[in-house]
Amino acid sequence: MRLRIDLSYDGTDFRGWAIQPDLRTVQGTLETALATVLRVTAVPVVCAGRTDTGVHARGQVVHLDLPGPASYDARLLRRLNGILPPDIRVLGVAPAAEGFDARFSALWRRYAYRVADDASLADPLTRHHVLAGPHPLDLDAMNRASEPLLGLRDFAAFCRRREGATTVRTLLNLAWSRDETGVAVCAVRADAFCHRMVRSLVGCLMAVGEGRREPEWAASILTARLRDPSLKVAPARGLTLEEVCYPDADELAARAGRARAKREAL
Amino acid sequence: MRLRIDLSYDGTDFRGWAIQPDLRTVQGTLETALATVLRVTAVPVVCAGRTDTGVHARGQVVHLDLPGPASYDARLLRRLNGILPPDIRVLGVAPAAEGFDARFSALWRRYAYRVADDASLADPLTRHHVLAGPHPLDLDAMNRASEPLLGLRDFAAFCRRREGATTVRTLLNLAWSRDETGVAVCAVRADAFCHRMVRSLVGCLMAVGEGRREPEWAASILTARLRDPSLKVAPARGLTLEEVCYPDADELAARAGRARAKREAL
Repeated sequence: MRLRIDLSYDGTDFRGWAIQPDLRTVQGTLETALATVLRVTAVPVVCAGRTDTGVHARGQVVHLDLPGPASYDARLLRRLNGILPPDIRVLGVAPAAEGFDARFSALWRRYAYRVADDASLADPLTRHHVLAGPHPLDLDAMNRASEPLLGLRDFAAFCRRREGATTVRTLLNLAWSRDETGVAVCAVRADAFCHRMVRSLVGCLMAVGEGRREPEWAASILTARLRDPSLKVAPARGLTLEEVCYPDADELAARAGRARAKREAL
Repeated sequence: MRLRIDLSYDGTDFRGWAIQPDLRTVQGTLETALATVLRVTAVPVVCAGRTDTGVHARGQVVHLDLPGPASYDARLLRRLNGILPPDIRVLGVAPAAEGFDARFSALWRRYAYRVADDASLADPLTRHHVLAGPHPLDLDAMNRASEPLLGLRDFAAFCRRREGATTVRTLLNLAWSRDETGVAVCAVRADAFCHRMVRSLVGCLMAVGEGRREPEWAASILTARLRDPSLKVAPARGLTLEEVCYPDADELAARAGRARAKREAL
């Protein structure tokens, strides 16, 4: 039996998602809690978006297959939250629909990157997930720079290359606006992201927003398909995985099959 | 010369506002930073709302009179934020208008108390200033209970009594609603608050919202003018001083005179 778990975490004190020996990671902490609650030795989980050190999540999704002796119980959510540390909260636990795969069934992932670009916007209560930017950002220039990056593209210049993995993705949305408090927020949505892709895009656009580069710079980097050494990756602190979207139940397995094939293609 | 400073802080790691020997307080931390930046030995500040241990502020206001050798400089804001710890941010520094007194010129103070009353609302990114409530709250019942508390009243039953101070206040607003994420928020506004008043009001209303008390209980406590031992003060974590409102410049001194006289009346 497969379960779907929705969770959120403050990434500040984690060495990212992926389990590593002797390091405090989200996956490691969650798997330990699951093993305790389910009274089994190991419960490997698969997530929708493997976040880096310091990156947060409000809408992370994982699946796990209940190991031999374990069984599903509606009290699982409360028991998990009872033993998890306060920087991870489980929002929901439920049996997954047939064919559901947290990683490969996803239609898209949505991230937000937040910057308080003026001293008057500083809020100590949100300092762990809103970057304090030293310079005011020109959102119009950033949105002009974003436009040509949308669509099905090879994002090789914005990714940390991984052997044997494609860097072609469909960027569905990339737009800056201000929230009700005045904080600059970049909404980024794609079918999937390569490693460091969101923070590289944001780093590029912030250089434009601060006036250090022309808006055309973003498109020129994309086209070059080579990492520009002057492109700085934006700090992890400002980035939050907000939402993962899945298709209706009857499409889950087919979507997973197509995504798996595409992601593994060279 | 008098300065007005607007600031915000995360109260989690402070032993409240008021300076105390050997304890980390907001006033102590701010006065030390001011003394360093102004190159003087001491800079006593006066604030609009003395927050307790663990209570936060997004809109705290203080005034200070520049000591002898110190002078105002527009770079003060940047220099203060440069040496203050990240859990205090100065939002603005400016010469105060004639007659301005951060405490006594204020027309009203506005606080917010936030409760995530369902597991699905838990957000580790806001856990330091949103209380995780174990029971769902009935906001309609809480608002019915709040209604009779509004106006000019003696809040003795909701205050920790201080010798020689009146407990009569004008409660301008006390209303619960849900923010865009679903978190329950109590907006509380009064000309001024006695010690522990907001958290006592919220503690009373939460007992109503959780169904442990009838809405009429709130009015009966107010009328009794005696502390009810079953009334629990709500935890500090959920409380934030959001805003302090001052009159126009020509009214500042008159307002301060009236408030000072009233607050000191028995």
